Amino acid sequence: MNNSIQKLFRGIIPPMVTPLNEDQTLDLRSLNLITEHLIKGGVHGIFILGTTGESSSFTTDFKENLIQETLRMVDGRIDVLVGITDSSLENSNYLAHTAEKYGAKALVSAPPFYYHLSQPELIAYYEDLADSLPLPLFLYNMPSHTNIFFEIDSVLRLSKHPNIIGLKDSSANAPYFQKLLYLLRNDPKFSLLVGPEEILGESVLMGADGGVPGGANLFPQLYVELYEAARQRNFSTLIPLHQMVMEISTNLYTIESGQSSYLKGLKSALFSSELCDDYLASPLSSFEKSDRNMIATRLENLQSSLSKLMST
Amino acid sequence: MNNSIQKLFRGIIPPMVTPLNEDQTLDLRSLNLITEHLIKGGVHGIFILGTTGESSSFTTDFKENLIQETLRMVDGRIDVLVGITDSSLENSNYLAHTAEKYGAKALVSAPPFYYHLSQPELIAYYEDLADSLPLPLFLYNMPSHTNIFFEIDSVLRLSKHPNIIGLKDSSANAPYFQKLLYLLRNDPKFSLLVGPEEILGESVLMGADGGVPGGANLFPQLYVELYEAARQRNFSTLIPLHQMVMEISTNLYTIESGQSSYLKGLKSALFSSELCDDYLASPLSSFEKSDRNMIATRLENLQSSLSKLMST
Amino acid sequence: MNNSIQKLFRGIIPPMVTPLNEDQTLDLRSLNLITEHLIKGGVHGIFILGTTGESSSFTTDFKENLIQETLRMVDGRIDVLVGITDSSLENSNYLAHTAEKYGAKALVSAPPFYYHLSQPELIAYYEDLADSLPLPLFLYNMPSHTNIFFEIDSVLRLSKHPNIIGLKDSSANAPYFQKLLYLLRNDPKFSLLVGPEEILGESVLMGADGGVPGGANLFPQLYVELYEAARQRNFSTLIPLHQMVMEISTNLYTIESGQSSYLKGLKSALFSSELCDDYLASPLSSFEKSDRNMIATRLENLQSSLSKLMST
Amino acid sequence: MNNSIQKLFRGIIPPMVTPLNEDQTLDLRSLNLITEHLIKGGVHGIFILGTTGESSSFTTDFKENLIQETLRMVDGRIDVLVGITDSSLENSNYLAHTAEKYGAKALVSAPPFYYHLSQPELIAYYEDLADSLPLPLFLYNMPSHTNIFFEIDSVLRLSKHPNIIGLKDSSANAPYFQKLLYLLRNDPKFSLLVGPEEILGESVLMGADGGVPGGANLFPQLYVELYEAARQRNFSTLIPLHQMVMEISTNLYTIESGQSSYLKGLKSALFSSELCDDYLASPLSSFEKSDRNMIATRLENLQSSLSKLMST
Repeated sequence: MNNSIQKLFRGIIPPMVTPLNEDQTLDLRSLNLITEHLIKGGVHGIFILGTTGESSSFTTDFKENLIQETLRMVDGRIDVLVGITDSSLENSNYLAHTAEKYGAKALVSAPPFYYHLSQPELIAYYEDLADSLPLPLFLYNMPSHTNIFFEIDSVLRLSKHPNIIGLKDSSANAPYFQKLLYLLRNDPKFSLLVGPEEILGESVLMGADGGVPGGANLFPQLYVELYEAARQRNFSTLIPLHQMVMEISTNLYTIESGQSSYLKGLKSALFSSELCDDYLASPLSSFEKSDRNMIATRLENLQSSLSKLMST
Repeated sequence: MNNSIQKLFRGIIPPMVTPLNEDQTLDLRSLNLITEHLIKGGVHGIFILGTTGESSSFTTDFKENLIQETLRMVDGRIDVLVGITDSSLENSNYLAHTAEKYGAKALVSAPPFYYHLSQPELIAYYEDLADSLPLPLFLYNMPSHTNIFFEIDSVLRLSKHPNIIGLKDSSANAPYFQKLLYLLRNDPKFSLLVGPEEILGESVLMGADGGVPGGANLFPQLYVELYEAARQRNFSTLIPLHQMVMEISTNLYTIESGQSSYLKGLKSALFSSELCDDYLASPLSSFEKSDRNMIATRLENLQSSLSKLMST
Repeated sequence: MNNSIQKLFRGIIPPMVTPLNEDQTLDLRSLNLITEHLIKGGVHGIFILGTTGESSSFTTDFKENLIQETLRMVDGRIDVLVGITDSSLENSNYLAHTAEKYGAKALVSAPPFYYHLSQPELIAYYEDLADSLPLPLFLYNMPSHTNIFFEIDSVLRLSKHPNIIGLKDSSANAPYFQKLLYLLRNDPKFSLLVGPEEILGESVLMGADGGVPGGANLFPQLYVELYEAARQRNFSTLIPLHQMVMEISTNLYTIESGQSSYLKGLKSALFSSELCDDYLASPLSSFEKSDRNMIATRLENLQSSLSKLMST
Repeated sequence: MNNSIQKLFRGIIPPMVTPLNEDQTLDLRSLNLITEHLIKGGVHGIFILGTTGESSSFTTDFKENLIQETLRMVDGRIDVLVGITDSSLENSNYLAHTAEKYGAKALVSAPPFYYHLSQPELIAYYEDLADSLPLPLFLYNMPSHTNIFFEIDSVLRLSKHPNIIGLKDSSANAPYFQKLLYLLRNDPKFSLLVGPEEILGESVLMGADGGVPGGANLFPQLYVELYEAARQRNFSTLIPLHQMVMEISTNLYTIESGQSSYLKGLKSALFSSELCDDYLASPLSSFEKSDRNMIATRLENLQSSLSKLMST
């Protein structure tokens, strides 16, 4: 069942936030803090320009700069995966070549998100795209934002393309993910990574190759240890780590009710952690002061629980 | 984390199919075969009149007869849970009292499914309902059919009602289920059961009290052993059993693409197993002959794999 | 284009509310008041047991009583159409025969609303149903409540059945409705009625055979005159009547944000008009006092504008 | 009710297709043919870079070139409106300033379409955007593609901004559009334009200021005459023109079932009309040959009916 050893990508690959200055320019000092924080935390790779990285809000120029700077800072110490999702194919291709030029290891693409492609249109798009890309490609299933779902048969078909090496599933639909794990269990090259950190533990227990947890921006070591405990099926270690992730999820991501609450909470907590400011790119915006204070208080409690847990 | 020992309901509680004659009357002979099959398979309870039981398609008279006959046949050997979901409250109440009269142990209710209730309307409905019911109540989260989702805060509120003792979650949204497991971890009476059998293993590993797997109509012992292996975190036993469930799921439930494919496949396989005929209640209908033959062939292969597995 | 003269059903056919006593029994006194109010207002028919009539919330016994009493009160003075929508086919058939027994002229059916039927399943269901019904049938497209949409091709197919005589479209999708009007323009028997009263005027202008406006429970004559003005393309009469309908819609139906706000507002306004009490059947409930008072004030203003308008 | 005379924008403003060469570059020769065709057809304005213009599929450089070339070709003869919809605010702002530089008269913006903004987030986004734009702005309600709906209260709030001058509604929800027409009937500056051409006639009859019909790329004069007939409430002229639009809609836009069928059909018909080639920008693609031939045949019939109609 578990062929992940041969696979190129496995483990914890956080979707890195994009730190911003007040004028919406890239905050290079914080970018450096966060990359060092992640590498020190033992993550297996870094994924930039995903949903958590607010990719859709930036121009191609901004993204090019972010790719260059991140790869310069990481300097080959770990793999960097670059999101190339864009409603324009030409933009996606440009980002892909930029990523290759500066040393990225793989690309990640959610479907173009304006027209709702049919499954045959989706397959055609990805077969064409993968043919032309200079680096291997992860599919990115993110139906809550793209309104397109990679159906099982489409993933099976695309998994046969030599340049498509995995899927990151952020659908939260665990039966769907189990079906992919089962149907692709004998594919030596196709990695299956899970998005929502609340199911990182159970997914890895059942054979997932890794995860892309947003909370790892804050506490990279926690998610790495959770991943290792799940791989080793060590429940006495796993369960308290999982509980800590649930405490993070239910405290930091749910201050507001909308889709942006997760991202606002995460950036606000990073601000309290002095890793970056809490500016979000338009069209999103930061919490008001009262919510920011609530995050600060909750984070303090979390850090206290966490330091007790990690020292044991 | 795991308080399930004190809880009233745990383990495998199959959603029993409703066997029909060609004229859409209840097939008593098959009902007896299936109940004996389930009890012999070691299930911890039987849930009648759920989605798999095609409850919404039957009149109240039909349901009353089914409740009476099932409880007569089971004769106290295991617990019977009765679905009372109906768009009419008076019908739900009548079914609840019928269930109590014939000896059921608990009731299960998905929201009334014509008007899309707001969360406050949903809470008010269930608080009123639970006040008046003669038996303890399971909430039933089935958004693909009811178009209403029991939001986290609504479940937390309803869990405080003394007569509401659990939730069966068929949303397939595993992060949602993990949040409920976490937030209700200290509630000694509230059971959390998972619907989709593809995630039965991982859910029980992480603390679910049990599951309501449709495939247990066919192979009750398989699901019971899977549940026990997951409870004991015995992976060498668990993984092959989980693989078998995935083989069932990907072979029997996906012949067609629509929502009814699962139910048609299940009843067709029960027909091949000589447990009941494959008639479905209107508005659903059986497979055409070619699909029925495909199910028969696939089932034969499954049974062969299964008998090898279970004898080891 | 306009063949409606030969059609059996045209004009204003209000979806009658179901007046209730506090104990959720049928309020016969108010039922009589409302039927007289509608007949006096000149409506072309009455549709009972639709969405506005809260059909899904009642038992079959209750519905049988309502059918019998309504037909007794109407006593042949105008046509009565009876909703037979139910998730159980046997219940639908029983209601159909009840309707025929007491003198109804036609039946109305929205799809069974628990399983989401595919379009072929939908067609098969209605062809079987129409074969067996003792009265002609209107299809009822109500996707916001049933989650099933009668696609254009399905309506064209079903329009060929001799016992299916029309469609009531409550989808609010006007391009869809125009396509049906165009594609069925040469069908001498198939009536197309529009649900939302906000587009009654424009729909009739463009060839619709009539409408099923909820507000006609309150002000039947207004909607009848609007219909006649639209049929005659008399804009100097039509526009002020349409403006009045918009004033009703934007003032009475939007107190709350949820799906039930329309029904609560309508029953609350009927209460202020002393036509019936404002009890709703479970799972819905009446407005709180402050909202009820707001409705009363708004209704007074509306009645004042209306009496000026209708006397001119 | 009808204040449209004072309004800046009214009448037929076609959403111009973007003609492409095989290598996905802008086809300047066809761009010239189409702009001349539209101007000769009497349209009241041209809207470039909308959904029909495949805006989301192009880079900012491509869009800048299209804006410049279109405005050069139009040369002040009619107003040009420019779509600035983009998931990145910086890109939208750049396009807005480009549009102003080359002489556009107004801007059109659908919401950023990756994150699903809440209504307060939507309002904040548009108030900020409108503050900074060099030209007046039309809101663009296109929920089938953006998954965001401009709710009534949000439109009322945004209509108060001095730089927001109208809404193009492509929701197909006619009751919603009627509510806006009613609630904004006394606003002298806010234009309400309707998207779907199937309801152009009825919308203008009831007070809409105009429409944005895709079919006007093919037959501009038809839609202009339909608009004028509706404004004058001249039904003997209006009805045959509306029937012709319905013939176009049901014949050309429905060859396939998906969302892209409209655009493929339109470009294929423009190809048969020798106005441009039928290349679509990735991720969409042209019809296969058999579908293209079907369009050609149907178009010939349409042209024959149309020439009879327009000569009378």
